[in-house]
Amino acid sequence: MTPERFGALWRSLAHVGRDATSGGYLRYSFGDADLRCREWFTEEALDRDLSVETDRNGNVWAWWGDQRGSDAVVTGSHLDSVPHGGAYDGPLGVVSALLAIDVLRERGLSAPHRPIAVVVFAEEEGARFGVPCLGSRLMTGAIAPEQVRTLRDRDRMTYADGLLAADLDPDRFGPDTERLGRIGVFVELHVEQGKALVELDAPIGVADAIWPHGRWRITIDGAGDHAGTTRMSDRRDPMLTFAYGVLAANKEARLAGAHATVGRVAVEPGATNAIPSRVTAWLDARAADPSTLDAVVAAVSGRLTERAGRDGTTVEIVAESVSPSVSFDPELRDRIVKTLGGPPVLPTGAGHDAGVLSAHVPTAMLFVRNPTGVSHAPGEHATDVDCAAGVNALADVLAELAWR
Amino acid sequence: MTPERFGALWRSLAHVGRDATSGGYLRYSFGDADLRCREWFTEEALDRDLSVETDRNGNVWAWWGDQRGSDAVVTGSHLDSVPHGGAYDGPLGVVSALLAIDVLRERGLSAPHRPIAVVVFAEEEGARFGVPCLGSRLMTGAIAPEQVRTLRDRDRMTYADGLLAADLDPDRFGPDTERLGRIGVFVELHVEQGKALVELDAPIGVADAIWPHGRWRITIDGAGDHAGTTRMSDRRDPMLTFAYGVLAANKEARLAGAHATVGRVAVEPGATNAIPSRVTAWLDARAADPSTLDAVVAAVSGRLTERAGRDGTTVEIVAESVSPSVSFDPELRDRIVKTLGGPPVLPTGAGHDAGVLSAHVPTAMLFVRNPTGVSHAPGEHATDVDCAAGVNALADVLAELAWR
Repeated sequence: MTPERFGALWRSLAHVGRDATSGGYLRYSFGDADLRCREWFTEEALDRDLSVETDRNGNVWAWWGDQRGSDAVVTGSHLDSVPHGGAYDGPLGVVSALLAIDVLRERGLSAPHRPIAVVVFAEEEGARFGVPCLGSRLMTGAIAPEQVRTLRDRDRMTYADGLLAADLDPDRFGPDTERLGRIGVFVELHVEQGKALVELDAPIGVADAIWPHGRWRITIDGAGDHAGTTRMSDRRDPMLTFAYGVLAANKEARLAGAHATVGRVAVEPGATNAIPSRVTAWLDARAADPSTLDAVVAAVSGRLTERAGRDGTTVEIVAESVSPSVSFDPELRDRIVKTLGGPPVLPTGAGHDAGVLSAHVPTAMLFVRNPTGVSHAPGEHATDVDCAAGVNALADVLAELAWR
Repeated sequence: MTPERFGALWRSLAHVGRDATSGGYLRYSFGDADLRCREWFTEEALDRDLSVETDRNGNVWAWWGDQRGSDAVVTGSHLDSVPHGGAYDGPLGVVSALLAIDVLRERGLSAPHRPIAVVVFAEEEGARFGVPCLGSRLMTGAIAPEQVRTLRDRDRMTYADGLLAADLDPDRFGPDTERLGRIGVFVELHVEQGKALVELDAPIGVADAIWPHGRWRITIDGAGDHAGTTRMSDRRDPMLTFAYGVLAANKEARLAGAHATVGRVAVEPGATNAIPSRVTAWLDARAADPSTLDAVVAAVSGRLTERAGRDGTTVEIVAESVSPSVSFDPELRDRIVKTLGGPPVLPTGAGHDAGVLSAHVPTAMLFVRNPTGVSHAPGEHATDVDCAAGVNALADVLAELAWR
């Protein structure tokens, strides 16, 4: 695979859902841009004589070999984005998977001994319905359909509405044990979301673990009132409790060597001249081990509650999703590291469908170097040279797994 | 005027634009609910044989007597609301004005010696275009049409788009000196937005001043990045600077005996799992005198800038609108107080069209008791008994001004 060939396929997708102002992507699950990405994938897969199907949860599968066979070698990633996200998080794994199949065929390989599938998982980012990795979680039963039915996007639409927009049956989503049982191994290639490979001077790395992480919804209720006429001493302003919580989360995470972020907040009523009645915020927290994560969230919760007592507000904290720590299959990891000639092995603080799958099948991840280290923002990047190296590495891994 | 008659007219408007969930109102200027409110007003005015016209700035006028005459006695208020605002802020002044005309006629008065007009000013709250009292500011020239042309609502629509939606000429808004020159006096009746009249045990009060006040837009730029993988020490997170600013504004206002509120914030990109790249917030600040107001805003600005230096972010603060202190015409105030038998006289922290008009014509305000003291929120209230007292008081004032 040459950088030029990688670049050509990459650019055929790169314009879809790109915001001209920010340069970032607005590819929300089952929205217009996501549907166009799905069409692009289907056409590219059919051009490669792969058989394409969409499962009951909205994940798209392209098969090389027996699509009803078992012990399949599955690779892929996702095509949805966070709001104004970067180009590579997700799509790099999908584009690389299609090109890896081209590489394998050009090497003269045909009729894989185990079926190969490229998968596009739905709603990986959780940007639309609030819970990440919904497509893989539904398939594996990691989230119940009943819980998914309660999720609403910002326009009050449901996951079923999304499936309907993609011309899918809105009523059949849920565990797909038959399909899950046919997956023998899952390998996800992903852009690195930090600068470890830059510091290690390596284009490709292999993951060994995902930090435990989660998102917590914090609802702070106060008393809405007029900004001009309400005495400061009479106020019950939830914005104050929120602001204190943001600073407390940052401090607690730093003290614990963990990560804490507040990237989304909704203020009601949201008027310049009104004291808010309610502030809803989302805390994203991650740490190297579950006990540290629990301790950080407990400390933030405690400090918020204490401050709420002083502000005359009330605080409710609900875990929207918590992902336990993932240790990828050590045997598979070692086999891949050996196949690739010993690239660096590193952990990540980011969640992935691979983390969800790892509870059920041997799973691995490849990372491609990101010169900026930026992710979930327009500055996210990987060079065509490194991406081509990623495609070749993925082809090597698929050859090792599907023909040996 | 009986409480029952007040209640009947009140309830004919009270359902328009009411949100069933919050119980508050969504009456944004020139939006569907506001247009229905305007239709309601037009019909009620025509039912009373008043001649109705809408001026070039979108303000609606209903005349009793010569609508081309001079030295007019004008009363009225506005019908737009803050998001999920209360029922009384604005509409009480309009409903009371229509009923006051009924009272005057039932007293046998006809053919006022000076023309009487009931006015509904457009975009008093600034909830749609960000600048309050736009209708009165445009008429008086307190804001230039060129500046209004740059204002956009959350859907990027302009004031001209709003006028067009109301079937008005979108290109003619601006100073209306001929109309302004025909106003001899302006009296606005308004629900009180605090509990002073409750504490004074009085149903009606008369304003003597409006605190100087303004809104400042604070833009904090940082670096968007992945919430899971970006080391805390590498972050440039504008949410931290914002949170510090919220607490600093609260503290500075308390120390100065002023009011400061942050009721609206926009986070970009607004994803749970992304460090924000930009936080835009609005500071509402008010104080009893301009030097205190300036000192509070300067102190908040200084503390924000200092914190931004530590967070690796940048801060820009722009005044979106600043209203100087208003002292209502003392002669008119004393005449009204005498007419009404000596009700309490009090200042207010809230801005009003009366504040804008007061720079050009003798202006006064009547307040009606608010048992909750709440305003700009669904809890805003006034009893039908107090509202009927307000109508009678306004009728007394109009009789004093238009027939003496």
